[in-house]
Amino acid sequence: MTDQTPSAMKTIRPKIRLYVEQPLGAGQPVSLSQEAAHYLIGVMRQGAGDAVALFNGQDGEWRAVITSAAKRSCVLTCEEQCAPQLDPPDLWLLFAPIKKARTDFIVEKAAELGVARIFPVQTGFTNSERIRRDRLQAHATEAAEQCGATFVPPVEELQPLARALADWPEGRVLFWADEGTVEGHKTGDIGDAPPGPAAILIGPEGGFSPNERTRLAALPFVQRISLGPRILRADTAAVAAITLWQARLGDWQSREAGNDPA
Amino acid sequence: MTDQTPSAMKTIRPKIRLYVEQPLGAGQPVSLSQEAAHYLIGVMRQGAGDAVALFNGQDGEWRAVITSAAKRSCVLTCEEQCAPQLDPPDLWLLFAPIKKARTDFIVEKAAELGVARIFPVQTGFTNSERIRRDRLQAHATEAAEQCGATFVPPVEELQPLARALADWPEGRVLFWADEGTVEGHKTGDIGDAPPGPAAILIGPEGGFSPNERTRLAALPFVQRISLGPRILRADTAAVAAITLWQARLGDWQSREAGNDPA
Repeated sequence: MTDQTPSAMKTIRPKIRLYVEQPLGAGQPVSLSQEAAHYLIGVMRQGAGDAVALFNGQDGEWRAVITSAAKRSCVLTCEEQCAPQLDPPDLWLLFAPIKKARTDFIVEKAAELGVARIFPVQTGFTNSERIRRDRLQAHATEAAEQCGATFVPPVEELQPLARALADWPEGRVLFWADEGTVEGHKTGDIGDAPPGPAAILIGPEGGFSPNERTRLAALPFVQRISLGPRILRADTAAVAAITLWQARLGDWQSREAGNDPA
Repeated sequence: MTDQTPSAMKTIRPKIRLYVEQPLGAGQPVSLSQEAAHYLIGVMRQGAGDAVALFNGQDGEWRAVITSAAKRSCVLTCEEQCAPQLDPPDLWLLFAPIKKARTDFIVEKAAELGVARIFPVQTGFTNSERIRRDRLQAHATEAAEQCGATFVPPVEELQPLARALADWPEGRVLFWADEGTVEGHKTGDIGDAPPGPAAILIGPEGGFSPNERTRLAALPFVQRISLGPRILRADTAAVAAITLWQARLGDWQSREAGNDPA
């Protein structure tokens, strides 16, 4: 599933894709970091004349050719744009960090499925008191490199859930994936919400504390959603909720000419 | 997310859940396998009088009390049913095995999200020529134990995709998650299909071979579906497709009295 199917692409897209922080454009030289140069030249065995796809999160994907290659330095020159910039819809993911592998997984999947920003939040039942933000960001970047994406969602610093809720931006719906029941508070279908800025909140294993649940249920911008009759792990719940939002309110509708946008 | 929220449960459900192969019912004695006994007594430090939840995929979940405990043997007696049997809807997952960790992940998530049977299939671009069926089955069982499920989807033996297609049962729709385009063949919305027996087909990294794509596009029971404008890894595609089917055609609709079944 991760390969670029040739028939779907107008221009030949190189197989190796790299995220860079420099501007991209026709004739633009791009100098790689030591680490990226080592990967490309040392690990992937590329050399002068070889083509690589570059993206920076803003200028789409560019076919670039290696013009100079040394052990720890590499310069490329952009030739032509081979994919337009595709920004995700305005969806945030708030999640409580869980075990390392599953936290990595949530960040990877959020980047793949098309989320605009990722916010790790500390909840009453969150075990982790710190995260390696740089490592999670590297995971998001790698997911984008692997999956043909031109956008990398920023991973923010860990913050308490209470602070995120206190500073909540006006006009943004927060979909709260909740396993339990709250008296007088129905769960809704994610597709019934109006289109517009949104966020999804996924709790840690153990769910939310009674105080958090009371607080969340009382907030006007919070919409409780159900993810079916089975209890889902936090990482599964994150993927399922993003999928439902993307399919109903996001940009999964208008992919092919044959599909009418919703 | 994995905890049983007390307010949602009528009876106190023990925290430790074990899948067993014996029949369950009031007063029924259940003798654990050596391995399960070692886990319960040796690892989890349970002893006579402690309560455990048992399920066998047929009789719901039963609260059982340890009546005799030794190092490698353990007998429990069922007291009362604490959750009814919840079978998944008639959805199969066919997937091409990929790297070990991601294959394990697909099986775990399929069990969590509620799939009735799991079929590993060999495709033109599948690297693996064998799978450890017993290991994958153990993953499905563990996922069910962890996630409060009462059903464990059987994991079938690896078979060639061509054979699965040749023996396809009448009346079952096969949703084919396909990244590419096929001339004259539109992708549809998974929710537009009629309710009834269904299956989801997820390819390996690299997608399907040209021959396979021609074959699939020509089969009357195959419905191509799109999973958005981004290229998804095989494991992400599996979770996304199961989620969409469950939300639109499966049993995710009628969870709470407040939700009208679709």
